[in-house]
Amino acid sequence: MNRFLELALAGVQQLVPYVPGKPVDELQRELGLTEIVKLASNENPLGTGAKVAAAIQATLPELTRYPDGSGFALKAALSGKLGVAPEQITLGNGSSEILELVMRTFVSPEHEVVFSQHAFALYPILTQAVGARARKVPAKNFGHDLAAMRAAVNENTRVVFIANPNNPTGTLLAREDVEQFVASLPTHVLCVLDEAYYEFVDPAVRTESLQWPERYPNLIIARTFSKAYGLAGLRIGYGISSIEVADLLNRVRQPFNSNMLALAAAEAALGDVDYLAQTIAVNNVGMQQLTTAFKELGLEWIPSSGNFVSVDVGQNALPLYEALLQKGVIVRPVANYEMPNHLRVSIGTERENQIFIQALIEVLRGV
Amino acid sequence: MNRFLELALAGVQQLVPYVPGKPVDELQRELGLTEIVKLASNENPLGTGAKVAAAIQATLPELTRYPDGSGFALKAALSGKLGVAPEQITLGNGSSEILELVMRTFVSPEHEVVFSQHAFALYPILTQAVGARARKVPAKNFGHDLAAMRAAVNENTRVVFIANPNNPTGTLLAREDVEQFVASLPTHVLCVLDEAYYEFVDPAVRTESLQWPERYPNLIIARTFSKAYGLAGLRIGYGISSIEVADLLNRVRQPFNSNMLALAAAEAALGDVDYLAQTIAVNNVGMQQLTTAFKELGLEWIPSSGNFVSVDVGQNALPLYEALLQKGVIVRPVANYEMPNHLRVSIGTERENQIFIQALIEVLRGV
Repeated sequence: MNRFLELALAGVQQLVPYVPGKPVDELQRELGLTEIVKLASNENPLGTGAKVAAAIQATLPELTRYPDGSGFALKAALSGKLGVAPEQITLGNGSSEILELVMRTFVSPEHEVVFSQHAFALYPILTQAVGARARKVPAKNFGHDLAAMRAAVNENTRVVFIANPNNPTGTLLAREDVEQFVASLPTHVLCVLDEAYYEFVDPAVRTESLQWPERYPNLIIARTFSKAYGLAGLRIGYGISSIEVADLLNRVRQPFNSNMLALAAAEAALGDVDYLAQTIAVNNVGMQQLTTAFKELGLEWIPSSGNFVSVDVGQNALPLYEALLQKGVIVRPVANYEMPNHLRVSIGTERENQIFIQALIEVLRGV
Repeated sequence: MNRFLELALAGVQQLVPYVPGKPVDELQRELGLTEIVKLASNENPLGTGAKVAAAIQATLPELTRYPDGSGFALKAALSGKLGVAPEQITLGNGSSEILELVMRTFVSPEHEVVFSQHAFALYPILTQAVGARARKVPAKNFGHDLAAMRAAVNENTRVVFIANPNNPTGTLLAREDVEQFVASLPTHVLCVLDEAYYEFVDPAVRTESLQWPERYPNLIIARTFSKAYGLAGLRIGYGISSIEVADLLNRVRQPFNSNMLALAAAEAALGDVDYLAQTIAVNNVGMQQLTTAFKELGLEWIPSSGNFVSVDVGQNALPLYEALLQKGVIVRPVANYEMPNHLRVSIGTERENQIFIQALIEVLRGV
């Protein structure tokens, strides 16, 4: 029994932290394997881009200095690229910190937070951490049921999370539906539109939401450099909101929450259009490769707009996950998302995908 | 008027963020100067160490991966070097995040937080952010008055901050006095012993507190790689506490709060004993250089155990600060610490110190 538990805030007492995908190092330590294929954390399979590496090299001599706490250069680059004012931007230690800042700025134990079943695991964790009440709304075909979510909003609701595309299902909401939902919210409700996987969505059906905060000042769009831009290790993401909301989020964040190399790398990544294009191309090919294999194996999957796909293995997925680990392939069990028969597989390189497919065939056969 | 202010938590509504030292880039943009001497943020003047740079180089290809959220390798290195269990360690995005995690884990609006006048500016800010009541205890000779701080502790007190040495005064508490204070605290009070400047203290008078959490499980020692280890830009610090307290802090932190390059660099820095020794040597020489100059100028200063010294300029220091800026020298005004006649000067290289001294002589003469 932890003697300090009763001194902790009520929310913290019940808090069960997020469980990350198994790190490659850890599996290597456990199994003594040399090659590990990790398709478990929706990471970019291309490796560090040359422009990012060069930007980090150029910044290395400055590490003894504190970062620019205002993020001047990165905000200017984002502002130019996205067509928003620098004052609308909040930089975070990953976009997960943007989500956390919204909670710490606006939510206390008397509030409710609305999100969907099967939505990103951090939403209930962040709700618990501030001691607020979670209103988890049943999903529709694994996606958000916006009408039901709207109906769950009441006078105590302070934040609604919408993930588009959603992780771990990859489901996509239509632009009109999202905007109608946002427009329908009362002014005491902040809407966090989590677009961590935005760049992977087919431009023909993508929700272009960046100009919405002008019309809906209670909207916060969260994006990240961890996925398509390949900077998960460095921790950098951002929020786009009304200047008023950004002002409050920036009061709560630590003055140096974004590190110097992340700031420099993100600016470089933003300018590296070839890396981004190659990322999307590899993802599209890999999605085809995996879903073709699932089809041949007679497995159903949830059509995904992200850089991952959740496949229904038709049985409790945990033993398959464990068997894949033994073969040096890490994917993600999603029982904690109420999807016990699914495995979420990140799209890798063609070779990584092939190794996974071969391993999956073997474990399904019990080899 | 910000329309969202009334939706923010009560503490956040009154929050005035920390003001960092002026960045070099910013002054260059403003004045068009080429050489800037920044002695404003207690940064390491030696520049990035070779071992740190090599560790970052080696880690560069991995940036598309998430960091190891458990910090396995760095905790093992710290554990070996410091003689504490890995389970006692909490890693943070700078030690400032450790301080924040303590507040977010244990403090809510009904609590009080005790700290000293002239103590680090983040303590009142973090207290305000969670809406708790600040009990600022008048200082004694610019240092902590531990007896008065103990007297300020009551049944509502949840956290006490002790900075040793303190920033911006550089004052040092005696080991016996700190231990007696910690031992005297009731069990419902968590004591944060902020040792950001620990490495600069003369070993003959240094408080060796790392074994204390075994005896005092309500003690959290906070240390950083930002100062003596020269990694301010990367954001990495740590807390040492009882396993029970560390367990709770680790529940509240984000799963990837420490970035991958910071983890690798900190491990390398910990092993680079030559860099640390040179840092201390340069600091000792520079402290002598600055205080000798102050003496010749007839200025009083507060004897400091850190890598900075606060000098009494015998007048409102702000115009002098501004005049120094015009000469390309950035130091730190500390009026926000109720020290309007002092400037805090970080110890630089011999050349940087000399440029500062020459500029100070000129601005004191009105040149």
